[in-house]
Amino acid sequence: MFASPPAPQKAPRPVSSTSDIENLIELMAKLPGLGPRSARRAVLHLIRKRALLLTPLADSLQIVAETARECLNCGNVGTTEICDICQSEKRATGELCVVEDVADLWAMERASVFRGRYHVLGGTLSALDSIGPEQLRIPRLLNRVASEQITEVILALNATIDGQTTAHYIADQLNGRVRLTSLAQGVPIGGELDYLDDGTITAALNARKEI
Amino acid sequence: MFASPPAPQKAPRPVSSTSDIENLIELMAKLPGLGPRSARRAVLHLIRKRALLLTPLADSLQIVAETARECLNCGNVGTTEICDICQSEKRATGELCVVEDVADLWAMERASVFRGRYHVLGGTLSALDSIGPEQLRIPRLLNRVASEQITEVILALNATIDGQTTAHYIADQLNGRVRLTSLAQGVPIGGELDYLDDGTITAALNARKEI
Ligand SMILES: [Zn+2]
Ligand SMILES: [Zn+2]
Repeated sequence: MFASPPAPQKAPRPVSSTSDIENLIELMAKLPGLGPRSARRAVLHLIRKRALLLTPLADSLQIVAETARECLNCGNVGTTEICDICQSEKRATGELCVVEDVADLWAMERASVFRGRYHVLGGTLSALDSIGPEQLRIPRLLNRVASEQITEVILALNATIDGQTTAHYIADQLNGRVRLTSLAQGVPIGGELDYLDDGTITAALNARKEI
Repeated sequence: MFASPPAPQKAPRPVSSTSDIENLIELMAKLPGLGPRSARRAVLHLIRKRALLLTPLADSLQIVAETARECLNCGNVGTTEICDICQSEKRATGELCVVEDVADLWAMERASVFRGRYHVLGGTLSALDSIGPEQLRIPRLLNRVASEQITEVILALNATIDGQTTAHYIADQLNGRVRLTSLAQGVPIGGELDYLDDGTITAALNARKEI
């Protein structure tokens, strides 16, 4: 989770030098999936593809840095206070799909099978990491179920121990207040949603079962 | 290889929308080492680390996009017409280290063992890809050997077939005009410089042998 975007402010541009390139490599190496070596390769690639890739990427990052924010309602990442999905009347189907992470929401959307809305928890309960319901968007979830026209909550959490613990906790809280289902067929043991192909997600949603 | 930086020009910034984030993901996925999935992870990570990573990275890319260029003398990447190494009088040792790629030059510099200057070929000879001497910086290399006070040319090309073919071609061209050496001990068969640790590069340079 992160705070709302700060007001855009421009620092004075430093004088250029070779260390600008080293600085870029260091920043790139902080991205998940890139180490120092692949960061150097990526920076050389960017410099060779200045017009096609480097400049567009710089511009795109600047735009996203200024505009990206979490939806106040569901936790999705977008560029408005309330995200496109929460704003769309077409998505007001009464079905609410609860996911751990925005990446999981994106995975569901890529499968193009779910037409309702989402609720992004921002993680899972974890005694070890002192993450309780208040550290996640669980109070807000209970609130939404009480105040929106929700008829079904689909718990699309990862098939990990923490994911399933979290699912059971939420199921306890919502028991009797709404139809509760979970993704079923197709999610492998220990598997994470964001690693699944669209077909598997589609199958799991279509075969969802009562909890 | 790439052209000199074009004059900086600002396109009007488009109105922000969720597709800005999708656009950023698409651009990130074009980086070597990142696929669509890791690009999505990277973008979510960036959005969560807006102040620490996203904004600095956007600024750094902008600076590099405006200033990065190839050294007219050696092909190194820097921010000036003639790179720091070519400009430094301390590096005028008479030793010239010939490498295929800027990444190889950076690997040599990280080992901190070579005190001379470089010549970046920009690839290797390849009949298959129609890459002849004119497509590389080989004419410019012969020129430098004739015009600069070069006493030794170290051929630090990759231990691949194309790398060694290129080394032999250059050795033929320079035969009798200058001391010719190559990196020896420590470079594994089929190995590429940029994959080696600093110690291996140091050992290979210290044990370099006459061709
Ligand atoms: Zn939303
Ligand atoms: Zn240079």
